[in-house]
Amino acid sequence: MAKKQGHTTYKMDSPVSIISYAGVVSKKESEGPLAEHFDTINPDSTFGENSWEKAESRMQKDAMNKALEKAGISSTQIECVLAGDLLNQCTGSTFGLRELGVPIAGLYSACATIAEGLALGALLIDGKGFTKVAAITSSHFCSAERQYRFPLEYGGQRTPTAQWTVTGSGALILGQNEMPPYVKSVCIGKIMDRGITDANNMGAAMAPAASQTISDFFKDTCTNQDNYDLILTGDLGYVGSTLLVQLMEEQGYKIGGKHQDCGLLIYDRETQDVHAGGSGAGCSATVLASYILPKIRSGELSEVLFVATGALLSPTSVQQGQTIPAVAHLVHISSKGE
Amino acid sequence: MAKKQGHTTYKMDSPVSIISYAGVVSKKESEGPLAEHFDTINPDSTFGENSWEKAESRMQKDAMNKALEKAGISSTQIECVLAGDLLNQCTGSTFGLRELGVPIAGLYSACATIAEGLALGALLIDGKGFTKVAAITSSHFCSAERQYRFPLEYGGQRTPTAQWTVTGSGALILGQNEMPPYVKSVCIGKIMDRGITDANNMGAAMAPAASQTISDFFKDTCTNQDNYDLILTGDLGYVGSTLLVQLMEEQGYKIGGKHQDCGLLIYDRETQDVHAGGSGAGCSATVLASYILPKIRSGELSEVLFVATGALLSPTSVQQGQTIPAVAHLVHISSKGE
Repeated sequence: MAKKQGHTTYKMDSPVSIISYAGVVSKKESEGPLAEHFDTINPDSTFGENSWEKAESRMQKDAMNKALEKAGISSTQIECVLAGDLLNQCTGSTFGLRELGVPIAGLYSACATIAEGLALGALLIDGKGFTKVAAITSSHFCSAERQYRFPLEYGGQRTPTAQWTVTGSGALILGQNEMPPYVKSVCIGKIMDRGITDANNMGAAMAPAASQTISDFFKDTCTNQDNYDLILTGDLGYVGSTLLVQLMEEQGYKIGGKHQDCGLLIYDRETQDVHAGGSGAGCSATVLASYILPKIRSGELSEVLFVATGALLSPTSVQQGQTIPAVAHLVHISSKGE
Repeated sequence: MAKKQGHTTYKMDSPVSIISYAGVVSKKESEGPLAEHFDTINPDSTFGENSWEKAESRMQKDAMNKALEKAGISSTQIECVLAGDLLNQCTGSTFGLRELGVPIAGLYSACATIAEGLALGALLIDGKGFTKVAAITSSHFCSAERQYRFPLEYGGQRTPTAQWTVTGSGALILGQNEMPPYVKSVCIGKIMDRGITDANNMGAAMAPAASQTISDFFKDTCTNQDNYDLILTGDLGYVGSTLLVQLMEEQGYKIGGKHQDCGLLIYDRETQDVHAGGSGAGCSATVLASYILPKIRSGELSEVLFVATGALLSPTSVQQGQTIPAVAHLVHISSKGE
């Protein structure tokens, strides 16, 4: 039974293990700095399918199967999958997982979905009724571009603050206390809206949500950046990351030396023409699954705050002149069980 | 700590109370058989806003405020809101709840979202870390028509199997063992896809999912229809309800005498021109919140299986010729604590 700490933080009663994790990406991601870490690289971004949406679903299926394979378990041992993505009506997940034959609860927190799944999954395991829960999400550059912006064929120019949607899917499998990495605490975020209306500047829209959740967590747990090896946001990109460090400093927290962002880790901004960095639900999910969690399991990293961020806009809300609400969910992941 | 029963059912350790519930609807719903039961009827389906999407968000805000008011608590006492809707990127929820200032976890199970929220919320409370969790969802005829089908101005004809999207929002607040109604068990559904491709026949697409979840629950709990006063699906409509009764009979369960459907309860098909009945995430949510839960609190109904159903299609998946996956989540609600 999770214990409430402060206002919005829940500490696991006994540590919940992330027993398996897998990240599947495509060509552009394989040309970035994390190439050697991804579990599967499929250079064909159609993934053998005849539409980008079907490609995204296929990618989720591949990521789930890889995570199951790495755990050495079958899908029938998973008691619930917490799944979501950026496509309208979350079809990346529903079509990707429909043949799995296990209970599925759909989630939506935009690019923060993997943290929502990890947090809710850990709470379900901690509640003692569930023994194996999976969390999965995805994004695909080509399906996202045509849904959120322009058809690829149009060749629209991108602004300097724009981010590049990662083609990738990350899957995690949670279990009872078995091995590191361990989920120690979770903090479901509040929606923040500071009036940003530029849908090509999602980093600025999301930074206040990240700042709110991280400072809420620091206050709830009476800790600060010195207690952690890494504060990993995803996916604020360059603009949002700079803003987050400033916003935290205004509250008295100097996180600069400890902060990294999934959107800045996955691509090389000098050579890959991604403008402000990577984004998409698959960005934080694949960076966490393929790059960060192995480092926690090996002990190279010990205390990590994973703070995925999501911009809760839709093309319709933008067209109607609405500002952009955002959310950030936090999960404290540790190499130590106690 | 919830106890697993059989394969997919989780029984609450101590009963979780649904301490408050509210349903907000508009004009067409106020002309149907349940008119007197709804908490709030706003005959102006714009809800004072200048777009249908903003109207839907406003309706969610109103439903949440009404549920809080009926519970006599403030929003700050809610530790997590589980919210979702049918709009792309779930903006009905995110824009409706952005000023609430409480942690929000976004959900998506199409028209089954309120059951997903109720199930996950009950598990969070049962895990003992949370004391107050809300679940909310909505749908709006006008925002749904233009997103899923045609602009209203087009005046497209509807097929006999089509259902009418309810303009409504239902909010529930869950708490620890306080008063009936009680959540006794929950069953998160598996995705079923029996090859239906007609997006105007969602009842047929969803009936197999309802049948699967109900029969899974019966097997897990060693019960059948005789153990319950009501098996309430939502929103299969006429076509899906007829099919569900047949599918259950094929498995040896004669649920006909115990089964009702939210999509058939909310409108009068003889006089209201709704074809196969009501649908939408707001359909099952408002019927449950305003009509069924009060009867359980009063003891008029004792043992109810609430089985909300969702068709997990998107306009894009339909255009790409995909079949329609569906899901049904089940919650056993009782007037008795033990």
